[in-house]
Amino acid sequence: MKKGITPIKENFSEWYQDVIYGSGLAEHSEVRGCMIIKPYGFSLWENIREVFDSKFKETGHVNAYFPLFIPKSYLSREAEHVEGFAKECAVVTHHRLRATPDGKGVEVDPEAKLAEELIVRPTSETIIWSTYKKWIKSYRDLPLLINQWANVVRWELRPRLFLRTTEFLWQEGHTAHATKEEAMEEATKMLNIYADVVENYLAVPVIKGVKSPNERFAGAVETFTIEALMQDGKALQAGTSHFLGQNFAKAFDVTFLNKENKREYVWATSWGVSTRLIGALIMVHGDDKGLKLPPKIAPIQVVMIPIYKNKEQKNAVLEKLNSYKKILNDAGVRIYIDDDDSKRPGWKYNEWELKGVPVRIALGFRDLQKQQVECFRRDTGEKIFLPEEHINKIPELLEEIQQNLYAQAKKRMEENTYEPKDYEEFKEIIANKGGFVYAYWDGTTETELKIKEETKATIRCIPLPAEEVSEGKCIYSGKPAKYKVIFAQAY
Amino acid sequence: MKKGITPIKENFSEWYQDVIYGSGLAEHSEVRGCMIIKPYGFSLWENIREVFDSKFKETGHVNAYFPLFIPKSYLSREAEHVEGFAKECAVVTHHRLRATPDGKGVEVDPEAKLAEELIVRPTSETIIWSTYKKWIKSYRDLPLLINQWANVVRWELRPRLFLRTTEFLWQEGHTAHATKEEAMEEATKMLNIYADVVENYLAVPVIKGVKSPNERFAGAVETFTIEALMQDGKALQAGTSHFLGQNFAKAFDVTFLNKENKREYVWATSWGVSTRLIGALIMVHGDDKGLKLPPKIAPIQVVMIPIYKNKEQKNAVLEKLNSYKKILNDAGVRIYIDDDDSKRPGWKYNEWELKGVPVRIALGFRDLQKQQVECFRRDTGEKIFLPEEHINKIPELLEEIQQNLYAQAKKRMEENTYEPKDYEEFKEIIANKGGFVYAYWDGTTETELKIKEETKATIRCIPLPAEEVSEGKCIYSGKPAKYKVIFAQAY
Repeated sequence: MKKGITPIKENFSEWYQDVIYGSGLAEHSEVRGCMIIKPYGFSLWENIREVFDSKFKETGHVNAYFPLFIPKSYLSREAEHVEGFAKECAVVTHHRLRATPDGKGVEVDPEAKLAEELIVRPTSETIIWSTYKKWIKSYRDLPLLINQWANVVRWELRPRLFLRTTEFLWQEGHTAHATKEEAMEEATKMLNIYADVVENYLAVPVIKGVKSPNERFAGAVETFTIEALMQDGKALQAGTSHFLGQNFAKAFDVTFLNKENKREYVWATSWGVSTRLIGALIMVHGDDKGLKLPPKIAPIQVVMIPIYKNKEQKNAVLEKLNSYKKILNDAGVRIYIDDDDSKRPGWKYNEWELKGVPVRIALGFRDLQKQQVECFRRDTGEKIFLPEEHINKIPELLEEIQQNLYAQAKKRMEENTYEPKDYEEFKEIIANKGGFVYAYWDGTTETELKIKEETKATIRCIPLPAEEVSEGKCIYSGKPAKYKVIFAQAY
Repeated sequence: MKKGITPIKENFSEWYQDVIYGSGLAEHSEVRGCMIIKPYGFSLWENIREVFDSKFKETGHVNAYFPLFIPKSYLSREAEHVEGFAKECAVVTHHRLRATPDGKGVEVDPEAKLAEELIVRPTSETIIWSTYKKWIKSYRDLPLLINQWANVVRWELRPRLFLRTTEFLWQEGHTAHATKEEAMEEATKMLNIYADVVENYLAVPVIKGVKSPNERFAGAVETFTIEALMQDGKALQAGTSHFLGQNFAKAFDVTFLNKENKREYVWATSWGVSTRLIGALIMVHGDDKGLKLPPKIAPIQVVMIPIYKNKEQKNAVLEKLNSYKKILNDAGVRIYIDDDDSKRPGWKYNEWELKGVPVRIALGFRDLQKQQVECFRRDTGEKIFLPEEHINKIPELLEEIQQNLYAQAKKRMEENTYEPKDYEEFKEIIANKGGFVYAYWDGTTETELKIKEETKATIRCIPLPAEEVSEGKCIYSGKPAKYKVIFAQAY
């Protein structure tokens, strides 16, 4: 494997992969399009997952688990859904292997062909709504507020770690409601939870908005989204929440008796975030030295590195570090003491910077005598000497780093947000600078697709409250505008 | 759906399914062999998972995630493994669907046939060891202590909820070591963690032992097991830990440079427990009224039921219950107040007994005035009046219930453990009583299979320390015995 990390300005996508490999987050597997999430990356995912999970539970949702496989015919039930999801997917056609005639390998047993093929779930609306039909009879059974943490598969021809992989991990919420208003409220509530977690835990600022019809989830009436801006000027859809209307209820014939004893179709939402968020984290905060992880979700918040010349010094330094560790552990700080004798301190500094650990504490024998430690902040690169009696201030420092990472990202997003005066300037910005580009749009898919064709920029969202405008002309067609929207090239 | 639960003595397997459906743990899906784990069942699984996960982490293991798909050829690499796992499995042959000519449905696109079929993982040794080859170079990379929480698929022709389903959830640990001794130590350490959790959290007593060669995991040198006894006299393998020797290292060519700079094959273990444990829980503790959940893993430890005649009483009773709830929540107790107006108290009593909630507290207006609550223990069926000032004793009561459930199950296991004097008595016990049957065995697979053929009983394990015996004659062949083992019919 090559040494070092491609500079971020030189080649962003190589930088991205170098950081992932170098920091040990993940790697490509030998199975095309599927990634291996390595322990450091998985620990990060566990922390992110736990924050979402507790927010979901606080708002009355429960977890459940539905089958991995979906009968092929289910995908055809909702007309738009089939268009969106019955394309590139993994199809199970047989349920048995047998020994090859030479006895050296295995082959598919043609006798074990399935009567109906099974699809590995690309998303679970169809299997879940076929189940809800059995569970929902009356208004007393509503709302049904269920979430699932699961792996899903969408065949990817051009895979990219965390961003586009054939298999990925996610959560998918699927809720059922008695009224349209309640379902709409749920969809926006979940969007707000997504924005809260992504901004306040991942320190990634987002714009909340509504998707244009062309960018909607297949089968949704309305798709809400949070959009983040990466350092290369591209947008990344970080989470979506869908108001599904009665589309799936009608497709799977899910009705309930309301309080007036009348039968009605159920109203639905679905919403999801995935391991893609880790891609956003990397691309928003990282630099030429590697990751910068926000303290709230960092697997290790503080790494401690002992510096010594002999065994006696090592023992003294380690003893002191362990006493600090105890104080900080009690304060809920996640700490790792890197006492590996086979690596030099300088090597360790680089390694833990690459891994994005927010704070590094180094302690040498001289510092020990001075009752101080060297404290390094990954976010700013600042190094200070911290008197021993201030070790208990580390939680405050972590909070400061958390805020600063958000502030830096927010500033960058604002600096890379434009409002061109005409289509020429629009094209120039998209082509040369990237970023979020606000512009008036006439509301037609035709215009949207033309702009996409000419610039590769898509409508990321109509920012909330997504009200129609009464003034302004479409940046492309010159016709009266319907909305002011955000365009960007996107992942 | 039918009302009520089949009595346990009348038809054990119907009782089992009735309890699962009635309590809302799980149900069969429309996808053959795959189950839906409902919110109550999944919450139970989450609690079990969390206990295991923290024990794994305390002992230095980390979580990671490997691909769902395994190239077909990988399964042939380890000769015995292919025998065991390349049989009934889900085979992905295509990666795309297309619209049918009539435009109404979808069909497999023959153009999208995979060059090599992918198998949905039945277990992950092969994909993980093909990865470890890249990760392990030197003794410094060892040990590698990785666990994965995942779904796996083994095609089941006769599915049974939690016990045998085509898809199930589990954890699989896969560790790599520099020496045989260390790998053996790991395999036994994990067996001990399994026994600890199953006995002290699930309250299910187990026998620790070693599998006979015929019952070993495909590819293992030694399989350790914990075996539990169900109320119908059948055994259930509740968890296994495998010493894999160098089998997978050789199959995937995984070597390391030892401290003497010599190349050696790596030593391996793997170990797993699954949602099957929920099946054990049900069949060990349940009764005609439904589940009995051990407090340590029960989603709800205490259910509180208000009893009232009018709104004024309801408010007063609920206010009091909420004050108890606060006290108990602060003590870490998981509580649910069932204030559903549409159900009568008697109905709720049955419902929460069916769901196996360890303690029920009922509070009526008269009790409120007497400053007491009615407290019901699900394990013994006892009902007492608890003075309000003793509400804070509930955690002790939960601990007592936990111990009692274990003691009851242990007593039952002991009462159903036999040591027949000859093969006639052996057959009689297996056929009429069931249970764990200790017997001398000559150590041959031939004898083992004969006994299985004649009685359907298999060797569950050679109980630890699994030493060879110097006396005794094989219960079947009359030849000198090699081990004293436990026979039973098993799930």
